[in-house]
Amino acid sequence: MCQLLGMNCATPTDITFSFTGFAARGGVTDHHADGWGIAFFEDKACRLFIDHQSAATSPIAELVKSYPIKSKNVIAHIRKATQGRIELENCHPFQRELWGRHWIFAHNGDLKDYQPFLSGVYQPVGTTDSELAFCDIMQGLRKRFPGSQPPLNELFHTLEEITRSITRHGVFNYMLSNGQALFAHCSTRLHYIVRQWPFQAAHLIDSDMTIDFAQYTTEADRVSVIATAPLTDNETWTSFAPGELILFEAGQPTLKTVVPIPDEVRLKNAQNSACL
Amino acid sequence: MCQLLGMNCATPTDITFSFTGFAARGGVTDHHADGWGIAFFEDKACRLFIDHQSAATSPIAELVKSYPIKSKNVIAHIRKATQGRIELENCHPFQRELWGRHWIFAHNGDLKDYQPFLSGVYQPVGTTDSELAFCDIMQGLRKRFPGSQPPLNELFHTLEEITRSITRHGVFNYMLSNGQALFAHCSTRLHYIVRQWPFQAAHLIDSDMTIDFAQYTTEADRVSVIATAPLTDNETWTSFAPGELILFEAGQPTLKTVVPIPDEVRLKNAQNSACL
Repeated sequence: MCQLLGMNCATPTDITFSFTGFAARGGVTDHHADGWGIAFFEDKACRLFIDHQSAATSPIAELVKSYPIKSKNVIAHIRKATQGRIELENCHPFQRELWGRHWIFAHNGDLKDYQPFLSGVYQPVGTTDSELAFCDIMQGLRKRFPGSQPPLNELFHTLEEITRSITRHGVFNYMLSNGQALFAHCSTRLHYIVRQWPFQAAHLIDSDMTIDFAQYTTEADRVSVIATAPLTDNETWTSFAPGELILFEAGQPTLKTVVPIPDEVRLKNAQNSACL
Repeated sequence: MCQLLGMNCATPTDITFSFTGFAARGGVTDHHADGWGIAFFEDKACRLFIDHQSAATSPIAELVKSYPIKSKNVIAHIRKATQGRIELENCHPFQRELWGRHWIFAHNGDLKDYQPFLSGVYQPVGTTDSELAFCDIMQGLRKRFPGSQPPLNELFHTLEEITRSITRHGVFNYMLSNGQALFAHCSTRLHYIVRQWPFQAAHLIDSDMTIDFAQYTTEADRVSVIATAPLTDNETWTSFAPGELILFEAGQPTLKTVVPIPDEVRLKNAQNSACL
């Protein structure tokens, strides 16, 4: 399938360290080489880079690694195609506008027999189940709050309801952000770590690289990194529970809930996860 | 104000030659240094690069110049801020989805007393008159064709009507593309050239660079380049008439019309154009 990487921070932070380890899984330390993408929010603006080359060899990935873009919300994805051809329009993250804000979405999983009714306000451009789910989520949020964006806690509970309706179709690990906060949902596999004062050194699993965050940070910094599999081997990452949906704000989890997964779906997901 | 660059081709073509000359106007040969952006369509997919640095010095512009992305439809923009702060969310081109396709828009001009009624399906993220006009256009096209995309000629005539309603607010040179075709409208200043077999050499105005297209092309190639001001000094560029709207398909103009500009607007535009 694919792998996800997200970052939510209290102050604008560059993701080059985590991205270096993550990008290595796109063809060097792992086989997710069917395209990749990364989205950086800078206030309300969003920069989205996608490429159908592998993240390990793409010139655009090289740029991202060498040009530190500071952001409070980042979502990245490396793809091993399951549904949808290896085409640029099928590369995650996907982007849409809602309530005068850009929204970014990336998915790791596989949805079966999933044919949501889309009224037309959001339509997929590519052929993935993932972009279909994103359109379904955007449509659901807009329908519940047609005028303007509600407070994040209300948004969280509506997202919980929409996620419940989608998660019964299969593996649905995802990340979603509007630049203010990051929502992460796990159906099979997702981990996070909160780094805060006093910061320490971290060593990548996928590349022999160590960074001592203490040298680059202040007490005001706080960073949550969310990834399919832990990126460092000398820190303790927290595993999401199956069905868990977490809202990350200012670098830390602020709301958590568990979206029930029907038993038969959980069983199928466990079988599918073997190949993650 | 700003400058625009567009390319529409019969076969996927790289724009690095034209972009090199154009980007020099973002801080070297001209003063449009308040951000820049470029969008490349690759079939239905779209890659959009934006940066608030000047195009002359941006590392992302360097990547675009050195990594030849082949595309049939490209729109680029360099900005000299008039309305809206120098923020990333105000960098053109802008992107939205309509009928399951990405749409890209960039504008050179200045719209006065322009407050269209937006129902909410498209809302600006930034604070420019340009993104507001793009939302107005997207909403107008969707309202006229709520189900799916009509043939390009029908789209052209609806765009003509929408343009008429906006152009009375001031200078409205723009480019719009959905990846299939490129629509270009001139209210004060826009030029184009069609390059086709037998191709010849071209020399940039803004950089001492010559390319002999004959070495890189076949009879199947045909390229229209559209720009605020001609980019080369040894070719004949065609000037758009004030109000002219042209549809470019497969590298050539296929439909043309003139959207009338009220006399009082034309007079004001001429005064504004002095600072273009």
